[in-house]
Amino acid sequence: MADDSGNKAVVLLSGGLDSATCLAIALDRGFACHCLSFAYGQRHSHELGAARRIAAQLGAAEHKTVPLDLRAFGGSALTDDIDVPKDQPSDGIPVTYVPARNLVFLSLAIGFAEVLDARHIFVGLNAVDYSGYPDCRPEFVEAFNTAANLATKAGVEGDGFKIETPLIDLPKAAIIKAGLALGVDFGMTHSCYDPDDSGAACGRCDSCLIRKRGFADADVPDPTRYQGTGA
Amino acid sequence: MADDSGNKAVVLLSGGLDSATCLAIALDRGFACHCLSFAYGQRHSHELGAARRIAAQLGAAEHKTVPLDLRAFGGSALTDDIDVPKDQPSDGIPVTYVPARNLVFLSLAIGFAEVLDARHIFVGLNAVDYSGYPDCRPEFVEAFNTAANLATKAGVEGDGFKIETPLIDLPKAAIIKAGLALGVDFGMTHSCYDPDDSGAACGRCDSCLIRKRGFADADVPDPTRYQGTGA
Repeated sequence: MADDSGNKAVVLLSGGLDSATCLAIALDRGFACHCLSFAYGQRHSHELGAARRIAAQLGAAEHKTVPLDLRAFGGSALTDDIDVPKDQPSDGIPVTYVPARNLVFLSLAIGFAEVLDARHIFVGLNAVDYSGYPDCRPEFVEAFNTAANLATKAGVEGDGFKIETPLIDLPKAAIIKAGLALGVDFGMTHSCYDPDDSGAACGRCDSCLIRKRGFADADVPDPTRYQGTGA
Repeated sequence: MADDSGNKAVVLLSGGLDSATCLAIALDRGFACHCLSFAYGQRHSHELGAARRIAAQLGAAEHKTVPLDLRAFGGSALTDDIDVPKDQPSDGIPVTYVPARNLVFLSLAIGFAEVLDARHIFVGLNAVDYSGYPDCRPEFVEAFNTAANLATKAGVEGDGFKIETPLIDLPKAAIIKAGLALGVDFGMTHSCYDPDDSGAACGRCDSCLIRKRGFADADVPDPTRYQGTGA
């Protein structure tokens, strides 16, 4: 793999399993990683705490949390009072879909990258997600990359930006194995849509179900702290 | 022109001359207009006050101001402590360029439109602006529209969104004439990058120079309140 040491990258870091692995991959490629998280009116702040701890543990150059209150728009179980569905994998686009979330987050990442003079933006989109969320599909990423390069001074006057999606073709088990090989402590990551006050995962929402199956498929111990297990 | 009455539109409203005219055009086409402004760390809040008053005066259905602090990124005279250049039209991309601003604002407009079940997004980009800012060019708008429709439930499952740029080919004088014909009170609009505490325009920044020339070219009185004129 090319040595990109000395280069800066912006890494979108949610605090989940995928973005933690994505950060580890960017670091392994030698990038100085400037991580970006959003306080977008999530129902809980456990994932932002997880993002901060993961960035520090893996050795990111920087971690910024930008306040961006999407509750003003409404429209999603992650930011509204709609119940999070339990015990059933989603069929079609899930109700937990946040309108235009990746479009907004990638746009902000481009702005941050332009200021930093970074050219690479890493985002942990993957095959499991894009079965449900339209803004996780490779065709969206490609179209967005084109628009971003037309929108910006860096794209017009220079080489432009490259949106890097190293996980996009990987099933969850392969992401877990890649992360473990690069030293990610998945016990620090947070995926649950509906944790209790202590941050313990419900084990039953769509995100928990996909994560659990990933550890089982990878045949490695699941370090997640689940509610009521005392673990 | 088609009667779009009953349809909802999102209108990006900065409080400037162009976005006020753009709102008047959307209203004239019969749209129920949901206006969106951003508190993005501007050096002054006069343009947000102007946006609120314009939305009310023209009869918008709604006006939301979303907090989005881009100062965290730095990089622009509009949000940083760099001096605003005076008495010279910009050559190339001006230092007042805010990284990825229209990319970010349009992305948020798409999220809002999706929640509202609106399909039209009006934005007052125009020919004078796009001579300097890359994210005001029609090729950017077209690429962004494609990306937005790939990113969203509405684009994937429905007819998708249409970014409307009614001013894009108009010189400033034509925009002013169009706005006047539709009842826009340009005395309420704010364009200056560097107003005094009362909101009076400096008359010398790039934005003021373009605006002044527009009223002169349109051969109509300039209602702008300039500093030191007592007007």
